[in-house]
Amino acid sequence: MKIGILTSGGDCPGLNSVIRGAVLKGVISHDAEFVGFRWGWRGVVEGDIVPIVRHDVRGLSKQGGTILGSSRTNPFEGEHAGPDNIRRMLDEHDIDAIIAIGGEGTLTAARRLVDEGGLPVIGVPKTIDNDLAATDYSFGFDTAVEIATEAIDRLRTTADSHERCMVLEVMGRHVGWIALHSGMAGGAHAILIPEQPMSIEEICEYVESVRDRGRAPLVVVAEGFKLDTMDEAHSHLGLDAFDRPRLGGIAEKLAPMIEARTGIESRHTVLGHIQRGGAPSAYDRVLATRLGMAAVDAAVDRAWGSMVTLRGTDIERVTIAEATGGLNRVPQARYDEAKILFG
Amino acid sequence: MKIGILTSGGDCPGLNSVIRGAVLKGVISHDAEFVGFRWGWRGVVEGDIVPIVRHDVRGLSKQGGTILGSSRTNPFEGEHAGPDNIRRMLDEHDIDAIIAIGGEGTLTAARRLVDEGGLPVIGVPKTIDNDLAATDYSFGFDTAVEIATEAIDRLRTTADSHERCMVLEVMGRHVGWIALHSGMAGGAHAILIPEQPMSIEEICEYVESVRDRGRAPLVVVAEGFKLDTMDEAHSHLGLDAFDRPRLGGIAEKLAPMIEARTGIESRHTVLGHIQRGGAPSAYDRVLATRLGMAAVDAAVDRAWGSMVTLRGTDIERVTIAEATGGLNRVPQARYDEAKILFG
Amino acid sequence: MKIGILTSGGDCPGLNSVIRGAVLKGVISHDAEFVGFRWGWRGVVEGDIVPIVRHDVRGLSKQGGTILGSSRTNPFEGEHAGPDNIRRMLDEHDIDAIIAIGGEGTLTAARRLVDEGGLPVIGVPKTIDNDLAATDYSFGFDTAVEIATEAIDRLRTTADSHERCMVLEVMGRHVGWIALHSGMAGGAHAILIPEQPMSIEEICEYVESVRDRGRAPLVVVAEGFKLDTMDEAHSHLGLDAFDRPRLGGIAEKLAPMIEARTGIESRHTVLGHIQRGGAPSAYDRVLATRLGMAAVDAAVDRAWGSMVTLRGTDIERVTIAEATGGLNRVPQARYDEAKILFG
Amino acid sequence: MKIGILTSGGDCPGLNSVIRGAVLKGVISHDAEFVGFRWGWRGVVEGDIVPIVRHDVRGLSKQGGTILGSSRTNPFEGEHAGPDNIRRMLDEHDIDAIIAIGGEGTLTAARRLVDEGGLPVIGVPKTIDNDLAATDYSFGFDTAVEIATEAIDRLRTTADSHERCMVLEVMGRHVGWIALHSGMAGGAHAILIPEQPMSIEEICEYVESVRDRGRAPLVVVAEGFKLDTMDEAHSHLGLDAFDRPRLGGIAEKLAPMIEARTGIESRHTVLGHIQRGGAPSAYDRVLATRLGMAAVDAAVDRAWGSMVTLRGTDIERVTIAEATGGLNRVPQARYDEAKILFG
Repeated sequence: MKIGILTSGGDCPGLNSVIRGAVLKGVISHDAEFVGFRWGWRGVVEGDIVPIVRHDVRGLSKQGGTILGSSRTNPFEGEHAGPDNIRRMLDEHDIDAIIAIGGEGTLTAARRLVDEGGLPVIGVPKTIDNDLAATDYSFGFDTAVEIATEAIDRLRTTADSHERCMVLEVMGRHVGWIALHSGMAGGAHAILIPEQPMSIEEICEYVESVRDRGRAPLVVVAEGFKLDTMDEAHSHLGLDAFDRPRLGGIAEKLAPMIEARTGIESRHTVLGHIQRGGAPSAYDRVLATRLGMAAVDAAVDRAWGSMVTLRGTDIERVTIAEATGGLNRVPQARYDEAKILFG
Repeated sequence: MKIGILTSGGDCPGLNSVIRGAVLKGVISHDAEFVGFRWGWRGVVEGDIVPIVRHDVRGLSKQGGTILGSSRTNPFEGEHAGPDNIRRMLDEHDIDAIIAIGGEGTLTAARRLVDEGGLPVIGVPKTIDNDLAATDYSFGFDTAVEIATEAIDRLRTTADSHERCMVLEVMGRHVGWIALHSGMAGGAHAILIPEQPMSIEEICEYVESVRDRGRAPLVVVAEGFKLDTMDEAHSHLGLDAFDRPRLGGIAEKLAPMIEARTGIESRHTVLGHIQRGGAPSAYDRVLATRLGMAAVDAAVDRAWGSMVTLRGTDIERVTIAEATGGLNRVPQARYDEAKILFG
Repeated sequence: MKIGILTSGGDCPGLNSVIRGAVLKGVISHDAEFVGFRWGWRGVVEGDIVPIVRHDVRGLSKQGGTILGSSRTNPFEGEHAGPDNIRRMLDEHDIDAIIAIGGEGTLTAARRLVDEGGLPVIGVPKTIDNDLAATDYSFGFDTAVEIATEAIDRLRTTADSHERCMVLEVMGRHVGWIALHSGMAGGAHAILIPEQPMSIEEICEYVESVRDRGRAPLVVVAEGFKLDTMDEAHSHLGLDAFDRPRLGGIAEKLAPMIEARTGIESRHTVLGHIQRGGAPSAYDRVLATRLGMAAVDAAVDRAWGSMVTLRGTDIERVTIAEATGGLNRVPQARYDEAKILFG
Repeated sequence: MKIGILTSGGDCPGLNSVIRGAVLKGVISHDAEFVGFRWGWRGVVEGDIVPIVRHDVRGLSKQGGTILGSSRTNPFEGEHAGPDNIRRMLDEHDIDAIIAIGGEGTLTAARRLVDEGGLPVIGVPKTIDNDLAATDYSFGFDTAVEIATEAIDRLRTTADSHERCMVLEVMGRHVGWIALHSGMAGGAHAILIPEQPMSIEEICEYVESVRDRGRAPLVVVAEGFKLDTMDEAHSHLGLDAFDRPRLGGIAEKLAPMIEARTGIESRHTVLGHIQRGGAPSAYDRVLATRLGMAAVDAAVDRAWGSMVTLRGTDIERVTIAEATGGLNRVPQARYDEAKILFG
C-alpha cells in the first residue's frame, strides 16, 4: 500500500509527530510505502510529491512545524483541482490513500472528495483552538495552553509589582478553550471567550473587585471574544475608529477601556504565533503519534471518509462529517466552573 | 458547612491546585469554611488543624508541593486512630466533611472510614504513576511525563554524540504509564514496564538493531520492571549480589548487562524525585482545580464514600471502592501500539 | 545598622533575588536590620515602610517581581520630595542607608540625593535592556534573552512550515542587546537594533537572500530600531499615518513593508511584557544575589554614592555617576560579529 | 583555507553552536572550506573526515550534542597516532588548520601537537564543569547550572511537603562551580564542593539549623566532594564498604549519614547525564557561536597554539598552555560569599 500524507492550514505542534507515527506504523506493521504532498492540498493538486522513508522521520517527534510544509490551498479551487484531477494524480503515482491532517476547512474538503469523488481519504483532526467536534482534544492544544500559562505566570509578577491590570490575548477565533484552560491554570481573574459575550461593565466589576482585595487583576481574552455592548462602549469612549482593522486585536482595545473606567493602569500583551510553533508538549507528542498510527490503520482498513479521534484515553474512528458538523464550543458548565475563579 | 482537607502520601504536582480549587469553590458557591489537616492522616488523628481562608490559596495553582504537608500515616494505626476517635475530633471542631487527597493507601483507608465508621469522607485520586483505576488520568502524571520527556530529549544528544546506549529509569512501581508516555514522546527504542517482563536477550536485540541502523539506543525503564529471566541473567553474569537493596535500581542493573552483551558503551540515569516535585503543568493545574471543585460539590451533596474522577473531558463521581479495586495497568493494546516504535 | 531597600522602575526578573541576597548578608554577616520602602521612591517620599526579616525572604530567589512593589515616582517631585524631607524620614525611622535598585532614572536620582543632599544611598543596577554603563551585564537581561530565544525557536518552525517571514519585536528602547543576543542564539537572519539604522531595502535584501536559499526568513527587531529612510519608506507606501502612536510598534510596521517589497507573506509578533516578568534564570539569580550582598557590604562600608557592578566574574564598586554617564550601546564590533549571520 | 574541526571528550551543550559559528564565519568572511573529523581525535588519527558546508550548519545553534561525534581518543596513542602521522593526514587532505574543541585532555594534546609537531591547531575550551583556567566561563556550564537549578526548584517542594532533607548530586569532579551556582540560585542550605572538604558533623549542623527554623533542608553536592573525616565517618556508621565502586556517588553516601545523625528522613537524587545533553541555553549559544567565530579568525591569523576565551564580555586569545596550566577552582571568596546562605 502506498499512502500519501498532507498537512494543511496553520502550524500546530505535533504535525511532525503524526507523520512519524503514521510512517513507523505503516512501514513496520503494514509494509506500507509513504509519500508526502508538499504544502497541503497544493501538493495534491499540483502533484508536488516527495518520498518519505523511515529515516526521514528520525527524531521528528519533538520537532515543531511540518516537514511537508503547509498552506491554505483548497483542493476544489484552481485549474488542476477537483476530485477527477486528484484521482488521476493518485493513479499516476500509484497512491492508494491520502491521510489529510488539518482543521475544519481541510476536513470539509476531505469529506467532499470522499463523498463527491469517491477518493480514498482519511482525516486527522488538527486545530490549535480545539474547535473541532468529535474529538476530546486535538494535538497542539495542550502545547498552546502550556505556552499561554507560562505567559500568565510571567505577567502576574509584573502586574503585582506595579499594581497593574494585565490583559493577555490568546488564540481562539470561534471558541475559547485556550483562554479557558490557561486562565484556569494561571489563575486569571476574568476569562473572556467568544461563546460568552460580556459587557465592559461586568469585566470592570471583576477587575475592581480584584483590586479591592489588594491584588493585580489579570484578564485572559480569546481573540474572538466580543463585548456584548461593543457599540455603546465605543461611543462612550468616543472610540469611533475601533473597528478599523489596523487597530489591532481585542486585548489592545480592552486595556484602555479598562483603564479609562477603573483608573487602574492597564497593559495588554498579544501572545500570537508563539502559541502555535515549536516543540510539542509530551502530551501532544503522544496524542499525535497515536493519531498518526490510527490513521494508517484506517487507511489499511479502507475506512475512507473516517477521521481518527480521541475519546477518553482511546483513539477511535468517526466519520469526518461528525467532526465538521459543528464547532466544539466551551459548554456552559465548563464556563460556569471557571467563573468561580473570576474576580 | 465546614470542610477539612488533607493531602497524603508522596508529593505530586497539583496538590495545591486541588486545595485552591476546593477552597474557592466552597467559599464562593457554598459559603463553606475550610480547615486543613496537617501532614495527611496524622493531622486527622492528632487533631493538627489549621484554618484555610481564601487568601491562603492565592497564587497556589502553580505552586508545587502541598501547603498542608503530607505523610504516610495510616488513620487506623496508633493510639488516637480509628473511626471513633476521628468522629470525636470532627465533632470537637465542628467539621462536617473530610476531603482526602491521596493514592491507593489513602483511599483504601478513606473507604474503611466511611464503611466502618460512617465518616463523611470524599476522595480525590492522587498518583504520580497513574495507577489508580476509575479515572482516565490523575493530576501530577502529565507533569511527570513532561519532565521525563525533557530528560530523554537531553539524553539523546549525548547518546548520539558518543554512540552510547542510555538507560533512563523513571517512576512506575506497579504500572508503566510514565515510561510508556515519555518513551513514546521522546522516541525511546525500548520501553520496559512492570506489566510486560522482557528478557535481557530481547532488550539487547532492540538495542543492537538500533545500533545497526546507525543510531544511539535509548531505553526507558519503569522502576518496577522485571527481567523475565532475572535469575538466569544474574547467574550468567555472575552478578549474584544483584538483589542486595543498596545496589540501586533497575537501570543501574540493566546498563552493564546491555554493555556486556552488546559491546555498546551504556550509561544509566535515574530521574528520581524531580519527577514528582515542582510546578505542575497547565494540564495538571486544570485537572487538579476541577477535581478540587468537584470534591466540594460532592461534600455539599453528602456523597460520602465517593471519589471524583476524570472521564473523557468530564469530572464525574465514582465510589472510592471502584478506584481502589484494582490497578490501572497499561493495557496490552497500548503496549503493542508503543512497541511499533521499538528497535 | 538599619538598611532600607527600594525597587524602582519596570519589572525585572531578579529583583527579589537582590532583596534576598541583601537581607541574608546583612542579617548574618553584619547583624543589620532591614526595612523595605513600598513602591520605589514613593515609599521613601511618603514614608511607606515595611519591616523585612529573614523569614520574609524565604524562597524568594526564584520568585519574579518584587515583594516591595515598584513605581516610577521621582524623589525630587512632589510635596514631600527632595533630600531634606527624605533625610527627615530616615532620621525618624532610624534608617542608616538606602539601597536603591533601579535603572538610569532611579540611579540618577540616587546620585543627586547623595551629591546634593549627602544622603546615604547605594545603587544596584537594574535594566532589562542591559543599557547601563559600568556593568558587564545586569540581572534580568539573561532571562529576557532566554525568553526571546525560546520565542524565536517557536516562530521558526511556523515560518518554515509556511514559507513565511516572521518579524519578532523584542525589548530595547535605546540599545539592542536583547535583539543581538536572542537573534544570535536563535539564528535570526537579520537583527535590527537602535544603534544601527538600516534601510528597508537592505532588510529586504537579507530577507530575499534567505528565501532564495530555500529558507524562511526570521527578523528580530528591537523596539527602538529606526529605519534610516523612514520618511521615504512611508511616502513610498503611502503610510502617512505611521507615526501615530496607536499604530503599534516597529514590527507591526516592518512586516507589511517586507511583504509589499518582497512578496513574501510576513507576520509580526510583539513579545512585550512576558520578557520582563516571572522566574529569573539561574544566571540572573546568582548575579542578583551577589549584587544584593555586595550592596550591603557597600552600605556597611558607608561607600555612599557607589554602585555595585559585574566585571568579568567579580562584583565590584563604581560610582553611580560612572553608570549613568552614558548608555551601554552595542559596540560596532559586536554588531559586525553578529552581521556574519545575517541573510 | 581549509579548516578541520573536531569535538572531543564528554557531551556539552553548545558544541554544535561552535561548529556553526566557525563555519558561517569562515565561509562568509574568509571564503574558507571546512571538514569535520569524526569522533574527536579518532577522526584525525584515522582520517575519518566529512565535508561541512553552510547548509550542514542550518538550525544547528539550538541543537544539543555534536554532529561530528565525540570520543576520548588520545592523538598520541595508537598505531597511526602522533604528530608525524597527523601532519601526513593534513597534507593528504589539504587541511590547513585544526580547530580542536575540548577540555583539559584535548587541549593538552593540542598543545603538544603544536609544540612538538608544529601542527596548526587552535583550541576552543569545552568543559561542563567550568574547570578550565584562562576563561571566565565556558559554554555548556550555564545550561548545566540552569538544569540543576530547575531540579532544585522541584526537589524543594517535595522536601517541604514531607519535612525531608534532599541531597542533590551535580557534576563537578575537581571543581564545584555547578554546585556553587545552582545552589545559590536554588537556595540550597549547604553547598559541598571538592575545593572545600567539610565534616559530616558540620553538614549536619547546617541541616539541623534549617530544620529548627521549620524548613526542609536541601543540600547540593558536587560529585567530587570529599568529607574531611571520611574514614571516621565510615567507621562510626560501620559503613566499611563505602569505597566499593558499585556503591554509587557521594549523594548516595551522604543521605543515610545525614539521616542517621539528625533523624531527618533524607533522600538523594543524582542528576547525571541530563546536565550535559540537550539544547543549550541562550547564553551558551551566544558564547559558543562567538568562540567558534573567533577560532576561525585565529586560524586565519595562523595563531597556532592559541585558545579563544571569554574575558568579561570580550572574546580574546590566550595560549593553550595558560588554559591547561591549572584548574579553575572556586576561589575562597566566592565560597565564603555562598556560605552566607548556608544553614
